[in-house]
Amino acid sequence: MASRPYLLISNDDGVTAGGINFLIEALRPVADLLVVAPDSPRSGQGCAITPTHPLIVREVRNEPGLRVYACNGTPVDCVKVAVNELLERRPDLVVGGINHGDNSSVNCHYSGTMGVVTEGALQGYPAIAFSLCDQSADADFTPLRPYLVDMVFKAIAMGMPPFTCLNVNFPKAEKFAGVKVCRMAKSRWERETVRCRHPYGQDYLWLVGECRELEPEAEDTDRWALAHGYVAITPTSLDYTAYGLIDILQASF
Amino acid sequence: MASRPYLLISNDDGVTAGGINFLIEALRPVADLLVVAPDSPRSGQGCAITPTHPLIVREVRNEPGLRVYACNGTPVDCVKVAVNELLERRPDLVVGGINHGDNSSVNCHYSGTMGVVTEGALQGYPAIAFSLCDQSADADFTPLRPYLVDMVFKAIAMGMPPFTCLNVNFPKAEKFAGVKVCRMAKSRWERETVRCRHPYGQDYLWLVGECRELEPEAEDTDRWALAHGYVAITPTSLDYTAYGLIDILQASF
Repeated sequence: MASRPYLLISNDDGVTAGGINFLIEALRPVADLLVVAPDSPRSGQGCAITPTHPLIVREVRNEPGLRVYACNGTPVDCVKVAVNELLERRPDLVVGGINHGDNSSVNCHYSGTMGVVTEGALQGYPAIAFSLCDQSADADFTPLRPYLVDMVFKAIAMGMPPFTCLNVNFPKAEKFAGVKVCRMAKSRWERETVRCRHPYGQDYLWLVGECRELEPEAEDTDRWALAHGYVAITPTSLDYTAYGLIDILQASF
Repeated sequence: MASRPYLLISNDDGVTAGGINFLIEALRPVADLLVVAPDSPRSGQGCAITPTHPLIVREVRNEPGLRVYACNGTPVDCVKVAVNELLERRPDLVVGGINHGDNSSVNCHYSGTMGVVTEGALQGYPAIAFSLCDQSADADFTPLRPYLVDMVFKAIAMGMPPFTCLNVNFPKAEKFAGVKVCRMAKSRWERETVRCRHPYGQDYLWLVGECRELEPEAEDTDRWALAHGYVAITPTSLDYTAYGLIDILQASF
């Protein structure tokens, strides 16, 4: 059925993760799906690409309306491989996720799930990322089900303006208070290293951290929405120009 | 001399690259430097972090006014390690580069050099990235010398607004036509995979590509400036909210 939407799906938790497989099952009844996802977890890869190593792609599933591939690259590599090698027609939407963990606020800078939709939008396609604020491997995605199809169809119907995408975060909850369109909250990661000692004596560091809110009272942010039980939709721009600074800088430089 | 500026420097080409060592020698006469850079090339790492492997840090140089460390992590990891483990006082500026290669337009999404300054700004420090549009290992950085100190001091004097940083790209030239403050040009990478065959028969892909300008006539972009011999300064925002979409989405979702 050529009139069914055609979706390109990837993630950063890898092709076997619960989140992407829940997404596949939720969207399969209503759309044809091409899934190209990392062959192992790639959290925190942001928009990293792999120019220095060969990329290997392996078919995992090939069924009517669903093809799934595993790739040894990053989330962005997966989208590039799909676009250049595997897409059968122009996708109506690129979908990232469902991520196991929070991609609101500054987390989006490091997020491989946001890498997927950033790359999708840079390639010229509408794109939407889904994340659940629950990092556990057996996170319960059931409460998201009615939202996923609805939001996918709305995103397709809207068509996103060029160089934008959507970042949707769900709080960990059985029911949601509603949906809020938000701006990205300002926050800062702190206490990000823990020093350990190898049995042979060398020190090494684990990257960890705590995220400190810089504007906890602001009610228009994604963090506020999530903290109050709402699904947070953050429209995201891929034009990073700080337009407000152009005139100021012109006077200085 | 406590009144000398204190700069945190990193890059993505690695601690032995020509660009970062040229930067060190150019800035050393005027500032105290802490350098924490990847122990090997990490181009295209964007804002990737390494939450899943131990980070190892090795002292490379320890001289008056200059400490240099190599780290087995990404450019962003290097900044996080510096901030959490190595800084002796608050840095006046975080400096990325000098990158061997163009980080204008959409290249900034994938750039580890931009990862350095993105992370610096997310940590609350003013930050400036330098890139030369010459990927070769023996690129000639000499024409940049008078600009580096000048721009570093201007960036410190301005103090950057929170959640912003500067992306400076130099064209490959012996002399520059001037300096232009620009917006990020819209462009798109295309033809990004080349298929090869391993001697044992398996296909693999190399990530390559050509960058197509989407607005070559626009005279206010970084690409235009570089193509016409100017140094391009692109003020960059780390608040990725697409504010113009908030009202539109509120009506739909």
